Amino acid sequence: MTPPLSRRLASEFLGTAFLVAAVVGSGIMGERLAGGNVAIALLANTISTGAALVALILTFGPISGAHLNPAVTLADAIEGGIPWREVPPYIAVQFAGGVSGAFAAHLMFGLHWYSFSTHVRSGPPLLFSEFIATFRLLSVIWGCSRTRPGATPFAVAAYITSAYWFTASTSFANPAVTVARALSDTFAGIRPADVPLFLIAQIAGALVATFLFRWLSGGLHATAEKILVAHETAQTGDS
Amino acid sequence: MTPPLSRRLASEFLGTAFLVAAVVGSGIMGERLAGGNVAIALLANTISTGAALVALILTFGPISGAHLNPAVTLADAIEGGIPWREVPPYIAVQFAGGVSGAFAAHLMFGLHWYSFSTHVRSGPPLLFSEFIATFRLLSVIWGCSRTRPGATPFAVAAYITSAYWFTASTSFANPAVTVARALSDTFAGIRPADVPLFLIAQIAGALVATFLFRWLSGGLHATAEKILVAHETAQTGDS
Amino acid sequence: MTPPLSRRLASEFLGTAFLVAAVVGSGIMGERLAGGNVAIALLANTISTGAALVALILTFGPISGAHLNPAVTLADAIEGGIPWREVPPYIAVQFAGGVSGAFAAHLMFGLHWYSFSTHVRSGPPLLFSEFIATFRLLSVIWGCSRTRPGATPFAVAAYITSAYWFTASTSFANPAVTVARALSDTFAGIRPADVPLFLIAQIAGALVATFLFRWLSGGLHATAEKILVAHETAQTGDS
Amino acid sequence: MTPPLSRRLASEFLGTAFLVAAVVGSGIMGERLAGGNVAIALLANTISTGAALVALILTFGPISGAHLNPAVTLADAIEGGIPWREVPPYIAVQFAGGVSGAFAAHLMFGLHWYSFSTHVRSGPPLLFSEFIATFRLLSVIWGCSRTRPGATPFAVAAYITSAYWFTASTSFANPAVTVARALSDTFAGIRPADVPLFLIAQIAGALVATFLFRWLSGGLHATAEKILVAHETAQTGDS
Repeated sequence: MTPPLSRRLASEFLGTAFLVAAVVGSGIMGERLAGGNVAIALLANTISTGAALVALILTFGPISGAHLNPAVTLADAIEGGIPWREVPPYIAVQFAGGVSGAFAAHLMFGLHWYSFSTHVRSGPPLLFSEFIATFRLLSVIWGCSRTRPGATPFAVAAYITSAYWFTASTSFANPAVTVARALSDTFAGIRPADVPLFLIAQIAGALVATFLFRWLSGGLHATAEKILVAHETAQTGDS
Repeated sequence: MTPPLSRRLASEFLGTAFLVAAVVGSGIMGERLAGGNVAIALLANTISTGAALVALILTFGPISGAHLNPAVTLADAIEGGIPWREVPPYIAVQFAGGVSGAFAAHLMFGLHWYSFSTHVRSGPPLLFSEFIATFRLLSVIWGCSRTRPGATPFAVAAYITSAYWFTASTSFANPAVTVARALSDTFAGIRPADVPLFLIAQIAGALVATFLFRWLSGGLHATAEKILVAHETAQTGDS
Repeated sequence: MTPPLSRRLASEFLGTAFLVAAVVGSGIMGERLAGGNVAIALLANTISTGAALVALILTFGPISGAHLNPAVTLADAIEGGIPWREVPPYIAVQFAGGVSGAFAAHLMFGLHWYSFSTHVRSGPPLLFSEFIATFRLLSVIWGCSRTRPGATPFAVAAYITSAYWFTASTSFANPAVTVARALSDTFAGIRPADVPLFLIAQIAGALVATFLFRWLSGGLHATAEKILVAHETAQTGDS
Repeated sequence: MTPPLSRRLASEFLGTAFLVAAVVGSGIMGERLAGGNVAIALLANTISTGAALVALILTFGPISGAHLNPAVTLADAIEGGIPWREVPPYIAVQFAGGVSGAFAAHLMFGLHWYSFSTHVRSGPPLLFSEFIATFRLLSVIWGCSRTRPGATPFAVAAYITSAYWFTASTSFANPAVTVARALSDTFAGIRPADVPLFLIAQIAGALVATFLFRWLSGGLHATAEKILVAHETAQTGDS
C-alpha cells in the first residue's frame, strides 16, 4: 500500500530541497576553495551531488519514490505509475522544495537568502545537452528499475556524476532544480531568462526516452508504480 | 541475540577511534601535499572519510551497530533501540575512542600526541550547517534502515561524502568527533571554545529528524534495534 | 528468452553511443576547465567514464547484455554466448553507435560534428598497455560474471576507472571506442594512423584472457549467454 | 569444493601482479601528469588502487579467495582457513606476482624493466602507520566477511582508498606489494633498506587484529575458509 499523499508530498519536498542544497551548497564551497581552478570546483560539485543522490534516493525513495524531479513525475504519470490527479501536488512541492533548498544553502554559507543568477547558459549546444541529459536520466530509470530495482539509486547517482562532465550544460536534467538554481547567483546558478528553454529541452528528452523505452524494454507499466524505487507502507527484504 | 556489552563497547571505541584517525589523518596528509589548494586538501579529506565509513560500518556494525556517534545513540535510545542504561557507556567509549583516534593520527604523522586547535568555526551559518548536517544524517539512517538495511553503510558514507561540501562547516555531525577534533591543531581541527554550540546544534538536528521520521516513515521502533545495521551474535545471509 | 535482435541492436547502438559521448565529452570539458593541469582533466575524464559505465550496463545490460565492445562480442561468441550470425550486426551497430556518440559530444560542446584526431598514440609501451588493458577487461568479465553476476556492472566500471591510470594508453580496450575517438581531435582522441595496431593489441588481449579463464574458471560456456549481464525478456528478482 | 591448487596459485599470481601494476603504474601516470602537485598525483594513485581492488577481488576471489597478500594468507592459516602446507606456495606466488606486476608497469610506461627505489620511508611514525594500516585491513576482512561476505570486496577497497590518506606511509599493508615497490624507483617506490621493518610492522598488525577479532567477533574459524570471499568450484547465487 502506498503511503498517504501527505507523507509522500513531505518526502518529495524534503528530498528536492536537500538535492538543491547539495547542488548549490557544494558549488559555493567548491568555488570558494578551488583557487580559481574551475575543474576542481566542478569536481567537488560533482562528487557532492552524486553522493547526495545515493543517500537521498535511499532515504526518501521508500516513502514517495524519490522522483525529486517534475520530468520524472510526468513520465511516470504517462506510464500509469502515479495517478494524474497527484501530479500537480507532486510537482508543486518539488518546485517549492527546490527553491527552499537554494535558500537553505545560502543561509548555511552566510549569503543573502536569495539572489538572481547572472550565469548565462544559452545556445543550441546547451539545449541539446539538456535534451540528451534528461533523455539519458529517464533511460537509466526505465532501463534499470525493471530488472535491478535495488541498484537504481546507484545507477541514477552514477549517471548524474558522469553527466556533469560529458554535457556542456553540466546536466541540470530537472525542471525543479533548474528553477531553484535561477534564484542563486553562485557557481551552480542559471540566468532566469535561460530557464524556459532549458525546461522545454528537459521535458522533450524525458518524453522521447519514455516512448523509446516502451518499445525497447517492453511494457513500462509493470514497473511504473515503483519509480524510482518501491514506495509502500509495508516492505520487507533487502538487497 | 545482541553481543555482550563488553564487546560492543570495544567495537564502538575502536570504530570511533578509527573514524577520527581517518578524519584527522587525511586532513594532515591532504594539507601537507596540496600545495596550498584547500579544495584539493578537502577533496582528499572527503574521499578518505567517506571510504573509511563504508569500511568501518561494515566492520563494526555487526558487533555494536556502529553508531560511532553520541547523537545516533541518543536518537536510537529515544526510539527504544538501545536500553537507556547502555547509553552512558556507549557515549563514554565513543568520546574516549574519538580522542584516542586523534592521538593516533598525530603519532602516525610524527606530531606531538595532542594540541588544542586554533581553527575558528563559529557564527550562525556554521551552527545552521551543523543542525542541517545532523538532521540529514539521522534522516538517512531512519529512512534507509527500514527498507534497505543492507545499503545503510553505503548511504551513510555517501551522505557524509556529500555533506563535507554542501555545508559551510564541512559537516562534523557527531559530538564525539567534534570533541576529538578540538584536540588537533590541524586541518580538521575546531577551536575548543566553538565546540559547545556545535554540540547543541548537532543534538537539535538529530532530535528533530527523529521526531519527523516517526511521522514520515511510520514506526521507527521496528528498526531501532538494528541501527545502523543489525548487530546480533548469530547472523546469516548476505547482500 | 532473449529479446528480439532489433531491440538488442538498438540497445548496443545507444549504449556504445553514450559510452563514447561520455568519454569524448568529459575529455573536452575536463581539458577546458582544468587550466592546463592534465592530471585534473584526466581525473574528470576517469570519473565520468567509470560512472557512465555503471549506469550504461545497468540500463542496457538487461536488453542486449551491454557488450558495447566488439572485443567482448567476439570473445563471447567464441564461448558460445552469442550465435556467430549475430556477431556482424552486433559489431556493426557498436561501431556506428560509437561514431555517433563522438558526433553527439561535439555538437553538445559546439564543435564541428567531426574532426580527425592528431593525438599521437604509438610505440610498443602503448601497444603492450592496450594488450594488458583488454586482457584485464575480459578477465573481469569472465571472472566476475560466473559467481557474482549482479556485481559485474560495478566490477567493469571499477576496472576501467583504475585502468585509465595504470596503463600508459589510458586503456581504450575497445575497438569501437578506439575508432570513434579517431574522429575527435580533442582530449580523448587518437590519430587514425595509430588505430590499427591498437585494435590488434586489443583483440589479442581479449583472446588470451578468454583462453586463460577457460582453464582458470573452468567452463565459461555456462555463463557466456549472460555476458555482461543476463538479458532476457522476462526477468525477476534483484540484487 | 576448493579449486585445484594450481589454479589458485595462478590466480594469486595474476591478482597480485595486477594489484602491483595498478599501484606502480598509476603512481607513474599521476606523477607525470600532476605538474608537481603531489596531492593530485596521490589522488589518482588512490582512486586507481581502490578501484583496482574492487575488480581484482571480484575477478580472482572466486578462484583463490584473492588474498593477494602474505599477511592475509598467514592470518587465514592461523585461523584454519587455509592448510599450512599451502601457505608457502601461496606466499611464493604472491611475491613473484607482485614483482612481475612492477616489471609490467615499467614496460607499459617505457621504463627499464626494474630499478631500485631511492624513496626513503623510515622512522617510527611510518612504522606505526604500517602497523595500524595492516591491523585495520585484517579488521575489515574478519569483521565484514562473517556477516556480509558479498560486501567484502567493496569494504576492502574502500578501506585502502581511505588508508592511502590517513596513514603517513600511504598504507602499503602488504609484504608482497612492499617488496615489489622496492624494485620501482617511481612515485610508489620504497628504498630496499626500509623494507624489513615495514614487513615486521605489517605482520604484527595482522596478528594483533586477528587475535583481537577472535574475541570481538567470536569464532573466526567459521568464516576463515571463505577469506576474502568464497572460493569454490561450484557456486550459485549472487549478491
